[in-house]
Amino acid sequence: MIVNHPAPELQVSAWINTSQPLSLAALRGKVVALYAFQMLCPGCVSHGIPQANLIRDTFDAEDVAVIGLHSVFEHHDVMTRRALEVFMHEYRIKFPVAVDMPSSNGPVPLTMEQYQLRGTPSLLLIDRQGKLRYSHFGRAGDMQVGALIGQLLAETVAEPVAEPATDPATGLAADCSGEGCAIHR
Amino acid sequence: MIVNHPAPELQVSAWINTSQPLSLAALRGKVVALYAFQMLCPGCVSHGIPQANLIRDTFDAEDVAVIGLHSVFEHHDVMTRRALEVFMHEYRIKFPVAVDMPSSNGPVPLTMEQYQLRGTPSLLLIDRQGKLRYSHFGRAGDMQVGALIGQLLAETVAEPVAEPATDPATGLAADCSGEGCAIHR
Amino acid sequence: MIVNHPAPELQVSAWINTSQPLSLAALRGKVVALYAFQMLCPGCVSHGIPQANLIRDTFDAEDVAVIGLHSVFEHHDVMTRRALEVFMHEYRIKFPVAVDMPSSNGPVPLTMEQYQLRGTPSLLLIDRQGKLRYSHFGRAGDMQVGALIGQLLAETVAEPVAEPATDPATGLAADCSGEGCAIHR
Amino acid sequence: MIVNHPAPELQVSAWINTSQPLSLAALRGKVVALYAFQMLCPGCVSHGIPQANLIRDTFDAEDVAVIGLHSVFEHHDVMTRRALEVFMHEYRIKFPVAVDMPSSNGPVPLTMEQYQLRGTPSLLLIDRQGKLRYSHFGRAGDMQVGALIGQLLAETVAEPVAEPATDPATGLAADCSGEGCAIHR
Repeated sequence: MIVNHPAPELQVSAWINTSQPLSLAALRGKVVALYAFQMLCPGCVSHGIPQANLIRDTFDAEDVAVIGLHSVFEHHDVMTRRALEVFMHEYRIKFPVAVDMPSSNGPVPLTMEQYQLRGTPSLLLIDRQGKLRYSHFGRAGDMQVGALIGQLLAETVAEPVAEPATDPATGLAADCSGEGCAIHR
Repeated sequence: MIVNHPAPELQVSAWINTSQPLSLAALRGKVVALYAFQMLCPGCVSHGIPQANLIRDTFDAEDVAVIGLHSVFEHHDVMTRRALEVFMHEYRIKFPVAVDMPSSNGPVPLTMEQYQLRGTPSLLLIDRQGKLRYSHFGRAGDMQVGALIGQLLAETVAEPVAEPATDPATGLAADCSGEGCAIHR
Repeated sequence: MIVNHPAPELQVSAWINTSQPLSLAALRGKVVALYAFQMLCPGCVSHGIPQANLIRDTFDAEDVAVIGLHSVFEHHDVMTRRALEVFMHEYRIKFPVAVDMPSSNGPVPLTMEQYQLRGTPSLLLIDRQGKLRYSHFGRAGDMQVGALIGQLLAETVAEPVAEPATDPATGLAADCSGEGCAIHR
Repeated sequence: MIVNHPAPELQVSAWINTSQPLSLAALRGKVVALYAFQMLCPGCVSHGIPQANLIRDTFDAEDVAVIGLHSVFEHHDVMTRRALEVFMHEYRIKFPVAVDMPSSNGPVPLTMEQYQLRGTPSLLLIDRQGKLRYSHFGRAGDMQVGALIGQLLAETVAEPVAEPATDPATGLAADCSGEGCAIHR
C-alpha cells in the first residue's frame, strides 16, 4: 500500500543487536526499512526475515537502514525477549531489532498499533524525510521492494512533517496463514 | 547412515497431537519415520518439518507412521512444552510429536542420547520389525528418503531383536548452522 | 499411474551419449527409468530433466538405468537430432538419450505411441523383469518417485511376460502447459 | 556493472511479438530493459527469461519497456528464427523479441558486439534519455534489478548524447555454465 504521511516514532521496550537505542529521528536522511515480525510467525521466518536480510545485503548501510520490529500480538507468554534473543542467535540475524512496547490496553503493542499494521510480517518503508511511504502486510516481491527503495533513494528534497494519530488497541483476535499472522480488527 | 540394529523405545515426557501415547512397540508392522527437531533450529524449520510433512503426504498412514521428536539440547528455558505447542499450532503441524525426556545428567535428552544423534534435524527410519535402519543428521534429499522408505515398505520378513545400549549425556556444546543444530561430543 | 504389463521394446532412430545402442532386453535385471521429453517443452526443461539427473545421482548405475527418450510430436522441423545434440551439450545431459523413431502415420513417434503416452515429460519405470510398472505424465514428486524406485529395487523374483499391444498414431493436436506438453487424442 | 554512455541503436534482422519494429530512439522517455539471450542457453531459460517476465509484471508498460534480444553467437544452425518462434510459443513469452543482426565478420551478432556483451543472459538497462546505465552478464538479483530500475524511473532530466563505438567481431570461442553462455574474447 502506497502511503505518504509522517512515520510515528518507534515505541520500544528493548533493543537487540545495537549498542545504543535507535530512533527514526536520528535516521533522518536515510531510507528506513522497518520489518515487523513475530518469531513464531511462519511467514516471517520463511519470507520476511530473508527479505530483510536481502535488503541489508543489497543496499549500502549509509543509504538504507534495516530495522526489525518484534511486534508480538499473540502468545506473549512464549515470545519473550529471552526467547527472541535465542531466535536471533540461531537464525543469525545481524540487523538491530526493536521489541515493540506492550500496550496496557490489549494484546497489540504500541508501535504496531500506531502504524495500524494488519499483522506480521509487515514491511514499512520510510523515506529520507521521515515519511512513511509504503506499508505492506504479507509477502511482497523482491523486485517490487527493490524498485520502491530505489525510488526513495533517488529522492533528495525535504519537507516538514505533521503529527501522527494514535489508536490504542483492545481485545483483538489473531490468526496465522502461509502469508503471515493477521490481526482481525 | 545405513544402520541395522534394534530401535530403542522412545523416552517421552509428553505427547502432543495424539489422544494417547505412542510407542515403537505398538507401531511394529509399520515403517516409522522419526524426525528429531528443535523448534528454534533453522534447518528443522526450513527442511526437516517440511520433509516430515511430505513423508506424511506421500505414504499411506497404514504403512508409514510419522512422529516428531522434540529433542531439546540447548536453550531449554525458551523451548518449553508450552512454546512447542504454540509453534506446532502456528506451523500447522499435524503429526504426533513426542517431547524427548530430559536427562538429569546433562543437556541432551534421553532418546536423543540413546540414538546417539549428532544434532537436529535428524531423520530416523525404523523398519516393520522395529529395527533402526537409517539415521541421518542434516539435510537428506527427498528422493533418497523416498527410496529408503520404499525399500523398507517392500520388506515383509520379521527377525528377533537384541538390546540397545544406553549412553547418558554430560556437558555438551551445541551449535547451529544452515544444515541444523549439532552436538559437539 | 500404477500399471503392470510388459514394457514394449524401444523403437529408436538414433542414440546419443552411448557408444552402442541400448535395449530394454539387455537391461533386464536393472530398474529402468525412462524419461520421455522434448527439448523445447518447458516442463521437461524445468522439471523432467532435473529429475532424471537426480535419479541418476541418487541410485547406483548398477541398479537403476536412466534413459532419455526424445519423443517429438510437434515442431519436428526445429527439434532435429542436430538441435538435440546442441541442447544436450548446453544442458550438460550425461545420460543416454534415444531419439524416438518417427512414424509414417502421423506426428507421434513409435515408442511414444506404443506406451500410449499423454505427452512430455512422462516418466516410465520398468522393473527388473522388464515390466512397465509406472507411467506418469507431468510433474511427479521426488519422494514419490524415490519410493517407487525403492520398491522396485527391493523386488527380486522374475516372471514371464506377455505381448504388448500397438496403437499407431494419426493426426494429433498438441499443447504445452506449465506441467508439460500434452497430446490431445 | 554501472555504466553511463549512449546506448547504441539496436541492429535487428527480424522482430517477433510486435506488429511493427521498435527502436531505442522511439522508446526515449521510457526506461528500457533489454535482455540478451539465446534459446538454448540454460541460464537464460532458468533465470533470464523469468526475470524479464518479472520486470514486465512489476512495472507499468508506460514506464518500462521490456525487450528481448536473441543474440546467437554459437550453434547458429539450430537457433534459427523458426526455432526461436517455436521456443517463444512454447515458453509463452509475451514481450517483443529482436533477432540480433548476424555479422559478416564472425559469430557474434552486431548489437551484441556493439554493446560489448560478455555472453548470455545479459541485462541492459537504458535510461529515459537513451543512455546505457547498467550492463550485467549472468544472474542479477531481483531486488538489485528492481532498485536500479526504480532509481532510473525517478530520474527526469535529459542530456545530449554522444556517439557509440563499434567493434566488429572475429573468431570467438563460447562456453555455457550454470550462470549463462560466455564469449571468450
